[in-house]
Parts: sequence; structure tokens; C-alpha cells
Amino acid sequence: MNRPGIHLKLRRIGIDTYKENVAYLHRDCPVYRTEGFQALAKVEINSVDDHQQVLAVLNVVNDGQIMAVDELGLSEQAFDQLGLDDGDMVCIAHAVPPESLDAVHRKIAGERLQSEDFLSIIRDVVDHRYSRMEMSAFLVACSESGMEREELLYLTEAMVNTGEKLDWGEGLVADKHCIGGIPGNRTTMLVVPIVAAHGMLIPKTSSRAITSPSGTADTMEALASVALGLDELREIVRHERGCLAWGGTARLAPADDILISVERPLSLDSPGQMVSSILSKKVAAGATHLLIDIPVGPTAKVHRMNDALRLRKLFEYVGDRLGLHLEVVITNGEQPIGRGIGPALEARDVIKVLENDPEAPHDLREKSLRLAGRILEFDPDVRGGEGYAIARDILETGRAMARMQSIIASQGVNEKPPVLGELIMEVAAPEAGFVTEIDNLQMARIARMAGAPMDKGSGVDLLKKMGDKVEAGEILYRIHAEFPADFDFAVELSKKDIGFSIDDKPPAPRNFPPL
Amino acid sequence: MNRPGIHLKLRRIGIDTYKENVAYLHRDCPVYRTEGFQALAKVEINSVDDHQQVLAVLNVVNDGQIMAVDELGLSEQAFDQLGLDDGDMVCIAHAVPPESLDAVHRKIAGERLQSEDFLSIIRDVVDHRYSRMEMSAFLVACSESGMEREELLYLTEAMVNTGEKLDWGEGLVADKHCIGGIPGNRTTMLVVPIVAAHGMLIPKTSSRAITSPSGTADTMEALASVALGLDELREIVRHERGCLAWGGTARLAPADDILISVERPLSLDSPGQMVSSILSKKVAAGATHLLIDIPVGPTAKVHRMNDALRLRKLFEYVGDRLGLHLEVVITNGEQPIGRGIGPALEARDVIKVLENDPEAPHDLREKSLRLAGRILEFDPDVRGGEGYAIARDILETGRAMARMQSIIASQGVNEKPPVLGELIMEVAAPEAGFVTEIDNLQMARIARMAGAPMDKGSGVDLLKKMGDKVEAGEILYRIHAEFPADFDFAVELSKKDIGFSIDDKPPAPRNFPPL
Repeated sequence: MNRPGIHLKLRRIGIDTYKENVAYLHRDCPVYRTEGFQALAKVEINSVDDHQQVLAVLNVVNDGQIMAVDELGLSEQAFDQLGLDDGDMVCIAHAVPPESLDAVHRKIAGERLQSEDFLSIIRDVVDHRYSRMEMSAFLVACSESGMEREELLYLTEAMVNTGEKLDWGEGLVADKHCIGGIPGNRTTMLVVPIVAAHGMLIPKTSSRAITSPSGTADTMEALASVALGLDELREIVRHERGCLAWGGTARLAPADDILISVERPLSLDSPGQMVSSILSKKVAAGATHLLIDIPVGPTAKVHRMNDALRLRKLFEYVGDRLGLHLEVVITNGEQPIGRGIGPALEARDVIKVLENDPEAPHDLREKSLRLAGRILEFDPDVRGGEGYAIARDILETGRAMARMQSIIASQGVNEKPPVLGELIMEVAAPEAGFVTEIDNLQMARIARMAGAPMDKGSGVDLLKKMGDKVEAGEILYRIHAEFPADFDFAVELSKKDIGFSIDDKPPAPRNFPPL
Repeated sequence: MNRPGIHLKLRRIGIDTYKENVAYLHRDCPVYRTEGFQALAKVEINSVDDHQQVLAVLNVVNDGQIMAVDELGLSEQAFDQLGLDDGDMVCIAHAVPPESLDAVHRKIAGERLQSEDFLSIIRDVVDHRYSRMEMSAFLVACSESGMEREELLYLTEAMVNTGEKLDWGEGLVADKHCIGGIPGNRTTMLVVPIVAAHGMLIPKTSSRAITSPSGTADTMEALASVALGLDELREIVRHERGCLAWGGTARLAPADDILISVERPLSLDSPGQMVSSILSKKVAAGATHLLIDIPVGPTAKVHRMNDALRLRKLFEYVGDRLGLHLEVVITNGEQPIGRGIGPALEARDVIKVLENDPEAPHDLREKSLRLAGRILEFDPDVRGGEGYAIARDILETGRAMARMQSIIASQGVNEKPPVLGELIMEVAAPEAGFVTEIDNLQMARIARMAGAPMDKGSGVDLLKKMGDKVEAGEILYRIHAEFPADFDFAVELSKKDIGFSIDDKPPAPRNFPPL
């Protein structure tokens, strides 16, 4: 049976509106008379046979060049979601507000929500029934002051249960995650080959950079393919006991990506949001044992040890109830880890560590060995405290390098490895003294301006780190860029603020709990 | 001095995105390399000389038909705000997040905000620096559970102080406002001529319908022009002591319209939001004495007397501190007021009351006289309790009608008054008995479906009201429509639910405090 009402011709409009579906209707379309639409109204578009539907926000077109009066346009993502062809007939109607908005209103009014409330909200989010405004309302209502940790558990479970879930068929599936914010810091690319060489399963999927100059997936891509299908991934992991892939291909905890698309522009980053985002992805990816790294420092995501401890407890509470074996380490996040910032520069550091090159950045090597050691101790046969020595042994005997080469070969070698950007600016110390501070945020900004992560050879190469003694005019770091415009912007930015502080006295050493 | 960076050619894109500014950039535009934009990013567009700026959300265009790679498109409203011409050169950059978002984050964290916090937030809202997501975050953080009434006062003051303010140069400027939700209910069109005929100043501006089948401005437009410039308005008011105009032309408390564009789709309608919205508009419009009408009923906006009383206290608290002489009346909102629902039908009711026609709807006449009476008692020379009799005298002697005719003539007679829609469906009682309920919401929906308020002759004409005795098959109401498609939809809707309840026994009379 056909839908009643006015039928319109579907048209794909070549506009990318990311996670927000937009429908376009010509101002003179006869459907206004019957429905009383207004720009920004939420509408549903249905196939005439009623089998396909997509929700969208309405924009009103006054230009016959863009579309005709008898057409209904959809932005690219919305068109793809609907799954019909250009010219197919469709109907448009006011969208019924998602029923779960009732639970959001109860949350706004201060109620505690139940497990089924979160499930219905997250299901509607995943089905694209929420506008960005509505998600914003939900997230703010759930922010710090408004959510019990029990509710956080429900939210995380709902995020897991509304997507696919991987099953690796083993009792110990290791994973690691850093909450981010520290440039360089490519420990994952060392931890995975070490842990896999030990024989422990570590099928690691990572994200690409969004606000940082490089994510693990971006850096790994300088060496190998990372966009692998799920079947390929299984085959590689079966063979290598580990992988270093991009996680964007599987539909794991899809609510997470959608909510992040609202949290990020709003700078909503409450501990609860971080915990539910990370743990939902990990559980969906099939992890059973998880190590979380929380770097602390004045320009890290977490500034004070007290906040790190509170965040740790929240991870532990939710992780335990999800049945994860979860451990949290709090690490020094006072400055970037390693020397390179940007995909190619970071890959260079990683390879140097794997090659046991004496020039390899010591901090990257040490942190990676300690993290790998903690993960190796998930193995019941590894005695507490012995993990570090085993990890070091695997690295020093070249077994980590061999495993990395094998993983790279399995994923597919990058035949055109990036070269460092040839436009170079050397930034010098304005005065003599000791490096007392390196601003993570400013170094990340400069590297991004230079073109990272899009131009893989661009970024920042640090020649000095905290505590180093420098003469006036001695080089602190090099900016690499591929394109003149980017180069100029990055140089400009570093002139405004070089990101380094130099002082007469060396910085006081700070105490972090040993890994 | 010219702005650095890539210059693009401005282009007006014929897309209406209502209160959300959208910028369009071609996928291959060279600016992506330097800025790393992503769809939905918040951007600022600046004139090359840096004198004009507009903020917008970015959509990425993949279709050369819509725009070229060296162009920057703006949606219609954004284009108008920027105030440049097609082809002028502009620059695009990441928008700096509004500084006042810091206060929003403090509110989310549970802090009480100060007067200056609200002022900076509302100023940024008015300058279009907030995305809809950000406004949603602010509004939810300020919702019922999160806002002290002191903060509500600050918010309202901020809304007044970020727009224009009218000054009528007199010590007593009367106004009235109904919180809405009751179809028909065109008391304003009777109160204004009565009060003006008494000599009291009542420069009434009203809104058009947004979710209802008719607003006062829509109904008045059936009789006269309502879109008047401020100078015209002043001239008319000086002459007539009153007017019945559309309020959309003046920039009074502009934050209100912007916030409403987020509150409405989110169904956020906390008492606080209602109070700040109404009072900010009234103070900005120069009112000194204000009567607020809160209808209560099972299908009204406020369902219970207790909630009405709480809302009244909130109005009183904020109104008093704003220096308003404010009174609140709680009225019977159990069913529509008058017989007609829709612009032409409501105008007919109003004229019948003014003509003292014995067929005129009694409830509309009585309620209007009582409201007018209360307003007349703002006059120090009118003894408490005498207002009603004075109002009735003005009505019965024809002075109200004369004043209305004079106001209509001043504003400009509608030379083409609407005729009632000629497609008519008579909806009959399914059984004999008493009308015990009339659903305000369902009657409004049917009238809208029939074409109101756009088609001024469309709507619903009630022949029976609560308490009336009916035979089976006796007509309850008539649906009028102008267009067959609308007519079919409205008939369909009334068949699903006629909106009337019929019972053996008459409805129990409910007690409302006397006006």
C-alpha cells in the first residue's frame, strides 16, 4: 500500500552535513500548505512503500538552480542512509519526536534514570532520531553534577548494546588506551608488538586524530595500511596475535561517535563522558583486560593528581561492573613523549626504539616498556613485577621489531612512505638556561598548523626536552611543513608563543606513582 | 589593512536555514589545507577589510552546480546579516568559541551565575555567536532544577538590555499577555479597544501563530494591516491610545526569539523560560502595567491550579524587581474560548461581541470584559471593583466598536477580507448526552490541518461548548478549508479523534478564582 500525501522526487544534494541529516524542500513545494513546515523543523522522509525512512532537519530552498518544486533533496549522508535512488518517489512529514525524549526531560528535571531509559535514549541516538540540540540537552542533563555512577554504568552498557560486538574466542583479550592530550606518545605502536610477541592477544584498533596532530592510526599509516575490513583483521590477528588498525570500519558502540560529534564542539568533557566513551568502545571491541593511561600535567587533559585519582575510581567502578579486568596507570604528562610530533616523525621515533637505536627517545622507550610490562602481567603465568623485564627482553632481542615487521607485512606495507616536509624552520632558545616547561597544547597546535596529520611529513621535531640545558640561540625544535601557506601559519604561531619556558634553575622533579 | 589568508568570492545561496547561519564551502576549496575545516565546524566569515563579520556552521558542497571552488556561500539570513554584496571578497576562519561559554560550563557544573554572566551569555546569543547546540546546553543547564529565581531575574534583565527599548513617554503604559494554549481566546482584540476608549495607553504588539491555529496578529490581519514600522506605530498610538500590531518588526529582546527557536523543538518550557520570555518582551516594549492571563485546564499549558499558583509567584517576583506593576489572573482553560478557531472565524466572533450581537459568544465577551476591567483598575481614578462595569459600559454604548473601527482605519483596512473556506465538513455527535470535554490540543490540530493560520478562511467553528446537551447526530462543529488536500487531512484527523467527549451527566462545574 502506498503512503497517502504528496509524493516528491528524491534528489541527492551534493552537500556534506556530517552527522546532521538535512532535507531540502523548495519554497514553492505544495507540501507546505498541508504540513506547515518551517526551516529547521525535524522531518521524516519515507519511501512511498513505507519501508525506508530517514530523519532530517529541514532547510528551505529558494533557488530553482539547486532543486525543483516537485523534488525533495537530501544531504549526502541522509541520502545514503535512506538507500533509495535519485528520482525515486518519497513522502515527507513532521518527525514524531523520539519517545525517549521523555526520559531526557525527566533527567533535566533531576530524576535518576534507569537502565531501560538509557537504552531507549541511546537506541534513538543510534537511529539518528536525535537532533544535535537534543543530544546537547541529554549530555548537559547527564553532566558531572547530574549523574550517579550507577547511571554511568547504564549509559555505558546501552552504548555497548546498541552496536556490534566482536568476539575473539579467547579468555584473555588485552587492550590499552590513553585518554590522550600528550603529543608524540605513540606507546601503542611499541606495546602491541611486544605483547603480541609474548603470545598474548592484543587486537588493537585506534582512532585517527581529530583535534591532535596525529592519532595512532595516522602514525601507523605512515608504515602500513590501517583501513582493514573485519575479516581481514581477524585473519591478521589470528596470525600475528595483534594488529594496529584503524577502528573506523566496524560499527562498535556507534552512539559514541555520534555523541562525540556534539561533545567536542561543546567542549563537554566530563569524566563520566570520557569513561562511557572509552569503555563502551573497548567492551564492544571484545577486550577482556584493559590498561588505561591517564597522563597528568599542567597542559595535559587532567591537571591535578586528585582529579586523576577520581577519574581512576570511576573507570574502575564501571569497568568492574562491565566484567572487564581493568587497571589504570597515572603517568607523567608534563611534556610530549618522544621527539616527533606528526605521523612521519612519530613513526621514525617508534622504529628507532624497535631498532634499539641509542638515539631513540628514552622516554618513549621507557614508558612503552612499563605499559607493556603491566599488560604482560595480565598473563597468569607472569609473576607480579616481572612484566617490565620480559618486555625489555622482547625489545632488546629484536623480537618486538620482528613482530612489528610481520604485522606491517600482514596489514600491507605502505609502498610510498611519507618523507619529512622540506620546508624547515628551526626555533631557537631566546636565552640560556634550563627548559622548565613544554606546552603540550601549543606544540600540538604548531604541528597541526604545519599540516599534521593530513600531510604526514609535517609536524614538529623536538631537539630539547624538559631539564635540558640550552645556550641562547641553540635549536629547541624544528618545524617541518610541505606547503608554504601551512609553513607560514605554523611559523607565525610559534613566533607568538614558542611553547617552551627557559629558566635559570632546572625544573623540580615531580613524583608519579611507579607503573 | 587587508586580512591575511585566502580570499573567497561571497555568494548568496538560496537556502533558508531560519535562525541557524550556514556557510557553504566547496570540497576542493584551497582553504581546507590551511584550516582543516570539517562539516559542522563553527566558522567566522570576515570582510577583507575586517569591518563585517558573521558566524555560521559549515556545510561542505560537492556539487559545482551549487557553487564554485573559489566561492564562499552563505545561507540567506547569514548573507543578510553580513551585509556585503554577491562577489565581494571575504575570508573564513575557525570561529573563536564565545568567551561566555565559560559561564555556561560553570552553570553546567552547578554554580550560581551572576548578573554579568547572564549579560555576557545573552549578548553572545544575540550576536549569533552561539550554535543551537550551545544554546541547548545553556537552556538545559538553566532548567527548572538548576536556576534560582534571582538568576531568572538576571537572565530577564540581560534579555531586555541586549535589545532596543521603547519609551512611550507616559507613566502608565498598559499591556496584557496570555501564556497561550487555548484556541479562540481573542480577548486582546476586545480589551485593547475598550481600554483605549477609556483613554489608557495600550500599544499592543502581538506575535503570529507558531504552533497554534492563529495568533492575535493573524486574526487582526483579517481586518487590518499589522506589519507596521515603529514610526507608524507611534503615530497610531498617539492618535488612538492603542493599536493591535504585529511585534516582529521591532528589535525588542531579540534573544527571546533566538532562544525560543531552540526551546520549541526541544519542548523545553519550564516556568522560568516562560517568565523570562514574556517579561523581557513586555519591559522592552515599554509596558509599565501588565496583566498576565494563565489559563488552567487538562489540555491547557498549565494543568493544575498548584502549578498556576507557583507560576504566578515567579511572574510576581521577577516582575516586581523589574519595576513592573504586574498582576496575574488564573482563568478557566478547560475548552476553547469563543466559537471560531482560525483567523477569519475568530475575527467574526470579535466583531460580533463589539456589535453587541446577541449571537456573540458569551464566554469571549465575559472574559474580555473581566480582563479589560482589571486593566482599567490600573487607573488610579478607577475604584477597585469598578473596572468591569466601566468596561461593559464602553462595550455596550458602542464606544469599543467605534475605537476598533478607528484603529483599523489607522492601521489600514484589509480591503480583501478573507472569506470562510468553502469546503465544509460538519462533525456530528456520535451519541446523545452532554458535552463534558473539549480537547484544546485536538481542536487546534484540526484547525491547523485545515489550513489555519496560513489560509485565513480555514479553521474550526464550534457550535457546541462544554455543558451543552446534544442529540445523537447533532452538529458539534464545522471544519472549513480552502484546499482539498488540507480538507482531507483535517477530516481524517477529526475522524481519528473528534476532540469532544459526550457523557450522560453534565460536567461538574469547576471553581476558578474570580477575576
